[in-house]
Amino acid sequence: MNKERFEKQLAFILEADKEKNIFRQTHLIGYERRENDAEHAWHMAMMIYLLKEYANEEFDVAKAMMMALVHDIVEIDAGDTYAYDTKALQTQKEREEKAADRLFGMLPEDQRDELRALFEEFEAGESAEARFARVMDNFQPLLLNHANDGADWRAHEVKRSQVFGRQQTSSKGSTEIWNYTRELIDANVEKGNIIEDRQLHL
Amino acid sequence: MNKERFEKQLAFILEADKEKNIFRQTHLIGYERRENDAEHAWHMAMMIYLLKEYANEEFDVAKAMMMALVHDIVEIDAGDTYAYDTKALQTQKEREEKAADRLFGMLPEDQRDELRALFEEFEAGESAEARFARVMDNFQPLLLNHANDGADWRAHEVKRSQVFGRQQTSSKGSTEIWNYTRELIDANVEKGNIIEDRQLHL
Repeated sequence: MNKERFEKQLAFILEADKEKNIFRQTHLIGYERRENDAEHAWHMAMMIYLLKEYANEEFDVAKAMMMALVHDIVEIDAGDTYAYDTKALQTQKEREEKAADRLFGMLPEDQRDELRALFEEFEAGESAEARFARVMDNFQPLLLNHANDGADWRAHEVKRSQVFGRQQTSSKGSTEIWNYTRELIDANVEKGNIIEDRQLHL
Repeated sequence: MNKERFEKQLAFILEADKEKNIFRQTHLIGYERRENDAEHAWHMAMMIYLLKEYANEEFDVAKAMMMALVHDIVEIDAGDTYAYDTKALQTQKEREEKAADRLFGMLPEDQRDELRALFEEFEAGESAEARFARVMDNFQPLLLNHANDGADWRAHEVKRSQVFGRQQTSSKGSTEIWNYTRELIDANVEKGNIIEDRQLHL
């Protein structure tokens, strides 16, 4: 064992512990408290494994799972940016790139480069692994929110066009899950959990 | 998509959300609160990927990661059993088997059998994946506890023989991490964080 290498890996692993204190807008089922990034990533990685049969194309499961596990680590420095906060979204990219430099920079060079590439690949959403991991990044909070009868959507007065805008990237990774997602959105619009802003041409 | 199948998978995924409310004895770094099972599993899965080079033998990374992600799910029904609670350890097996029946039974039959087998394989600790996943199950809380200057060991008045007894299974999965673990245990005995109960033959 190269101890210097091992201790760099451990430093990154210990730093990652902070993700357990980065809270998202989504609440756990039962609505008692908000979910943190580590919990969200755990749930996503498990879902990648369990729902892989619905992916549009073959993908490397371990790679997609690791992508899910680390995709939010930059929020340790950059904070969580709510999907519908347009002001925070403007500076998100810059804040997250700086965080990626520092955090992945703790690892030995080969793993620094590997994880940075994995992170960028997830962000770009162009590979089979990234496309499917991103389906889970959309679908996991949607499921929790639906199970809470849309409480987070109601609290933020979210409109159909906003949910649709974010969720429709899921179609690239899984047509089947995207079709199911549309049904869930419609059901929540019908219940008044999501605000209808579609122009109906009669 | 077979919707009946998909909704069984979703029922399991939603039920798994409860793992975020099962708290362990280990504290997060900084000691503000205890860690929950989902956070522990997330950390373990990430460590499997990052530290795989230290495994004694080749293994299937996705399988070992999924094993880590689900290994504590039975605690939703059976509760967390502290590693050094001898009374609770006596009934642990029975409580966890019953929980496994109910929880994995929510999945479609093929995945019920697959995940149950994965869970039993982890418990038995005889395959390459299980051996390495178990190294992480030991090493992850040890790292957090060491980072907290042994506060959990001190709170429970843990003895060297107890830590050694649990941690030494790591030698089956990674001789290198086991050697590093021994150094960490010695350092914490020296600081008085772990009680020395070794018979010294002078």
